[in-house]
Amino acid sequence: MIRRPDVPTLVARAREGDPRSVARLISLVENGDPALPEVAAALAPYAGHAQIVGLTGSPGVGKSTTTNELVRALRAEGRRVGVLAVDPSSPFTGGAILGDRVRMQEHTVDRGVYIRSMSSRGQLGGLSAAAPQAVRVLEGAGCEVILVETVGVGQAEVEIASLADTTLVLLAPGMGDAIQAVKAGVLEIADIFVINKADRPGADATYRDIQGMLALGEREAGDWRPPVVRATAVRGEGIDDVVAAIGRHRAWLESTDNLTRRRQRRASVEVEAIALSTLRSRIGDLREGTALSTLAASVAAGELDPYAAAEELIKGL
Amino acid sequence: MIRRPDVPTLVARAREGDPRSVARLISLVENGDPALPEVAAALAPYAGHAQIVGLTGSPGVGKSTTTNELVRALRAEGRRVGVLAVDPSSPFTGGAILGDRVRMQEHTVDRGVYIRSMSSRGQLGGLSAAAPQAVRVLEGAGCEVILVETVGVGQAEVEIASLADTTLVLLAPGMGDAIQAVKAGVLEIADIFVINKADRPGADATYRDIQGMLALGEREAGDWRPPVVRATAVRGEGIDDVVAAIGRHRAWLESTDNLTRRRQRRASVEVEAIALSTLRSRIGDLREGTALSTLAASVAAGELDPYAAAEELIKGL
Repeated sequence: MIRRPDVPTLVARAREGDPRSVARLISLVENGDPALPEVAAALAPYAGHAQIVGLTGSPGVGKSTTTNELVRALRAEGRRVGVLAVDPSSPFTGGAILGDRVRMQEHTVDRGVYIRSMSSRGQLGGLSAAAPQAVRVLEGAGCEVILVETVGVGQAEVEIASLADTTLVLLAPGMGDAIQAVKAGVLEIADIFVINKADRPGADATYRDIQGMLALGEREAGDWRPPVVRATAVRGEGIDDVVAAIGRHRAWLESTDNLTRRRQRRASVEVEAIALSTLRSRIGDLREGTALSTLAASVAAGELDPYAAAEELIKGL
Repeated sequence: MIRRPDVPTLVARAREGDPRSVARLISLVENGDPALPEVAAALAPYAGHAQIVGLTGSPGVGKSTTTNELVRALRAEGRRVGVLAVDPSSPFTGGAILGDRVRMQEHTVDRGVYIRSMSSRGQLGGLSAAAPQAVRVLEGAGCEVILVETVGVGQAEVEIASLADTTLVLLAPGMGDAIQAVKAGVLEIADIFVINKADRPGADATYRDIQGMLALGEREAGDWRPPVVRATAVRGEGIDDVVAAIGRHRAWLESTDNLTRRRQRRASVEVEAIALSTLRSRIGDLREGTALSTLAASVAAGELDPYAAAEELIKGL
């Protein structure tokens, strides 16, 4: 017997801050559970309250350490924090460095923090489709800030980062990251640059590289100019500056119509992805039925062309 | 001004054997032209008459030489032949060995042969979506046998080969191909194995490997057991045996209900792919419209959940 999730109870408990219910709901998202529409409907009223902060960068720039320190700083302000790690190299998703894992565990006994790694198991469309739903769960659980950590390498990761209100791009000296960031399309999504490991040689050169690239970008009056913040996350240095920059970006978003515009654009992408995935699975279901077989037989016999048959199929959905 | 293709005239001329009209129609397929449904409708009555022979194998096994010799043998029988090369390493698609190219050009002045390479430029779904339509064009142009040549490496290539009635898998001695064929999933699609370069050392070992693998397969009475044919295409040796094996497979397909079943299954896959691609582009069109924007605004405001919005979007298609 398959146990159907009791969605109303799970959502009610998640609202009260029960970590197990939050975890269960995110598992439903991750596995593409048939109950997802019900989960989404139950969570809809709580959408839009959290500040979503994306954090991306190449492997080795210190993303998990920075995430860890940001959690600490935000908790010190008394804010409820969610962490969604969709980074295959992250300690949260398995490619662990023991030290980092232990430090993150310090937060896991804190009821004001939810930490969750995600993989793309069942969900059609992979993590790009699942991540927004997981963010909705964390929002529903009352998180005020949600950190979404991804590796800034592929297009999918850029998409995941772009579901944030504010996206941090992490760089480290001497990794040729400034150039890589341009190549990976990460530059376009950066609201704040963080040069981590700023105590290392080459930090000044990386700083100048980024400032140089930013100077080339065209901006109009009132546009946001991404600040470049130096930090040494492993010693907790510069983290307050990062938090301050996030706050300034948030204020800018709210003072203009950009917060609304970003969120509407994201909702549009999300709805489109769900619609496509729904249609794909409905067409897949037809494989078992007679409608597709009948149409295919007509096409094979030359009585119907495949485009006309596809049109018939679509009408029947 | 965009020149809209005059589909009825193109199809009528292709029917009469005009090579330029055939070429133009395949270009429409390759570019995913909006006129494709019209092309498909005009060609539907001529579907199902040609024998479609897939030819696949790793780079270096001699696919283009074998194709070339098969064309020669089939032309000697007076049959009209189409060649569709979707193999990036093929001389037809650009990765040319001059000698082979010259030999193929011998056929290009023969009006009973159409040779066409394909790349996946405009078509959503790539070559897997475009190849069946290109086959329809060649069928419409009166080809009695259509050779579809692909590299048997990736899943897409296997899919393309599987649009054939009869699929030849080419192997060569000493390439570890028997093992590779299993890995690449090519074994499942093989109706005939051809060990090319059979004059080379190791041909007997490859022959035994394949026979050994076939002996392991479970077959019921009346099932087709793939023959293993030896050839040295570069000297034209064994090509008659390959042609004979193709004929025997064809006779088996016709004497059972397998020809009908294969073609219906393929039509089903084709219709499904077109339906999905149509829906994807219709949803894409909505990006410009107001329906998706309105829904997205409701989702962003928390008034509607994204699944309900996606359902609305689907209703509006």
